[in-house]
Amino acid sequence: MSNDSITAPQGFSAAGVACGIKVSGKADLGLLVCPGGATAAAVFTTNKIVSAAVQVSREHMSSRKVHAVVVNSGNANACTGTKGLADAKKMCGLTARHLGVEPGEVLVASTGIIGHQLPMDKVTAGINEAAQRLSDSQEAGLAFAQAIMTTDTRCKQAYREIKLSRATVKIAGTVKGAGMIGPNMATTLLFITTDVTISKPLLGRALKDAVGSSLNRLTVDGHQSTNDTAILLASGMAGNPRITSRSGQYGKFAKALTDLCTDLVRQMALDAEGATRIFKVVVKGAATKADATRAARAVADYPLFKCAVHGRDPNWGRIICAVGSAGVKLNPEKLSCRLDNLYVFRNGTPTKFDVKEASRIVSQQEHTISIDLGVGRSRDFYYGCDLTAEYVRINADYHT
Amino acid sequence: MSNDSITAPQGFSAAGVACGIKVSGKADLGLLVCPGGATAAAVFTTNKIVSAAVQVSREHMSSRKVHAVVVNSGNANACTGTKGLADAKKMCGLTARHLGVEPGEVLVASTGIIGHQLPMDKVTAGINEAAQRLSDSQEAGLAFAQAIMTTDTRCKQAYREIKLSRATVKIAGTVKGAGMIGPNMATTLLFITTDVTISKPLLGRALKDAVGSSLNRLTVDGHQSTNDTAILLASGMAGNPRITSRSGQYGKFAKALTDLCTDLVRQMALDAEGATRIFKVVVKGAATKADATRAARAVADYPLFKCAVHGRDPNWGRIICAVGSAGVKLNPEKLSCRLDNLYVFRNGTPTKFDVKEASRIVSQQEHTISIDLGVGRSRDFYYGCDLTAEYVRINADYHT
Repeated sequence: MSNDSITAPQGFSAAGVACGIKVSGKADLGLLVCPGGATAAAVFTTNKIVSAAVQVSREHMSSRKVHAVVVNSGNANACTGTKGLADAKKMCGLTARHLGVEPGEVLVASTGIIGHQLPMDKVTAGINEAAQRLSDSQEAGLAFAQAIMTTDTRCKQAYREIKLSRATVKIAGTVKGAGMIGPNMATTLLFITTDVTISKPLLGRALKDAVGSSLNRLTVDGHQSTNDTAILLASGMAGNPRITSRSGQYGKFAKALTDLCTDLVRQMALDAEGATRIFKVVVKGAATKADATRAARAVADYPLFKCAVHGRDPNWGRIICAVGSAGVKLNPEKLSCRLDNLYVFRNGTPTKFDVKEASRIVSQQEHTISIDLGVGRSRDFYYGCDLTAEYVRINADYHT
Repeated sequence: MSNDSITAPQGFSAAGVACGIKVSGKADLGLLVCPGGATAAAVFTTNKIVSAAVQVSREHMSSRKVHAVVVNSGNANACTGTKGLADAKKMCGLTARHLGVEPGEVLVASTGIIGHQLPMDKVTAGINEAAQRLSDSQEAGLAFAQAIMTTDTRCKQAYREIKLSRATVKIAGTVKGAGMIGPNMATTLLFITTDVTISKPLLGRALKDAVGSSLNRLTVDGHQSTNDTAILLASGMAGNPRITSRSGQYGKFAKALTDLCTDLVRQMALDAEGATRIFKVVVKGAATKADATRAARAVADYPLFKCAVHGRDPNWGRIICAVGSAGVKLNPEKLSCRLDNLYVFRNGTPTKFDVKEASRIVSQQEHTISIDLGVGRSRDFYYGCDLTAEYVRINADYHT
């Protein structure tokens, strides 16, 4: 099998180890390295309370090149004051020393419980061990992907390949996230590697757009964490003509990147805490794009609807109720709703639909709810997942 | 035992019957009558999609006097088009004929499943039977309170008595609501009777204020239904000097009314679908009142925090996370959080608190979370309840 992990694009090596931050003994420290130095783009949480790692990485993004990303799971290093900040900087410093680069050329990310200080002896040992194990093998990429997991039950990876002129450009990504997934930098750690040659501003643009229509369109429980971070590293080793404008080449790369992110988002939604199925809410006929977004999110976030999806119940009344209370402009006499291609509500009136067919649709692993507000031409969408007793169990039992 | 139901204030009679709307055979039709004619106040849902009953009652509120309220549970008569509207009017017409009043002097309310036409033969028989059974007994008031229940497991009633001059003024109320409880006319049917003598504008003012600081400060799942209705009827038979200004007498009445509504809201929160305990989120130090409201609601609505409360886990990290993502102005270095009187986070840093004491606090039937945003002098609060597996079971199994 050919490598489809984050070490697949040329110029990257990785490692993942268990250093004892997690009491379970599972992997909890990952290292992703680009020895030649990568052009980097990043998107961070908009939560007003941010982790120490986010503070440090934001600062380090001003470096011309990024040589590594060091990540720990099992501890968010958030709400940890000045000691937390010093620890995040130390993680960069230790990693930099192993690689012979500047601390400012290393990014850091953390995920896990809030308000506990990092066990720095363990973290230090973990970084030392990971630095010894760095490899560009598929196994190393997978080990990194596993080291960033928290309540995730599955490791999420995606891979895409495109041709730019005669060069083969590879893009690979891994994401963690299962709860605390709200939009606007949706709640996760996301790491993407590529060997494309591209200018820094355009790399940033491409990441922002890709995240905007993938991670920022998924809601599991409507909140952003203090640690959300998406990092995209480009080694520039694919040999394609350098992308410096929003040309066709740029478009092709950006499309593949969005596609990869959407793939990861789907995997994330399906692995959301307790989730058994996912859905896409498409809102059209809205007066403004903002209204479309708001209505789509209102449905995707609505606990009663999420429960109905879990019960395989085509309860369109809860969809209409959520849309009506979203505070958006709509025409009650034009309002329509479809489950996949089946109209259940049309022009303000329930249709006589085939209940068996409706049940079949909502029982699928993924279905689409299409809503027409009947007032304009704007549209948007949101992904969501069902709400289950398992979600409650996971989050009531996850003790501080 | 003296009467403490909605028939306690002078001038009211009531009835509740089972007419077969609910397949369970439980009571599903209630009638509340003020033979002498009552001054009425009402607050309705702000959902853009409203039930037929809400449309009709809004219209009938322009009548000088209201003689009756007819209510059915088990069917929301929402999203039911012109037939639904005609049925809601018919419910008023039938009731009016029994009482010898105008249909416009009767209000109507419905609660239950959306999108199904009312079985009008059963409803008609129910109104006929209820009209025969009207009584001012405590049993009749209780029968009405039971007839408005849906997934409620307990019947909610509250009673207050005040002295205005030498007159004894009675206020009694009943509320239904267990899920679909969001703020801004929080999701319920609420009926209050009183024998106070008061002008219509002041009665409206008193109801709006009382709802504003009670029902509009409770969130169970953050959404408004299509049917939310609060109705307050004043028979004027207590013999107090008519209240026509915002005097001390008005203040005394308004305070008792708010107190009664808060009592009902507590009962509702504790009986929220699957809930086992409730909490109050108090936010102070906010730049604006709107910010305080928003931050308090963000915490009260946050599924991860609600799960933590269910797990009796003093997970203050989730509180801070919710506050940070609420989009309000805050000072990360001044941010503080208390559980009852125990500081768990102070001036941006975790405190070394007694974990046993914190667990005891969050294990109570009700506790208070106090948050200081550290930027201003505004404050507000919200009530919420825990999120449980039972909530999911109820709402996944409630089939259309």
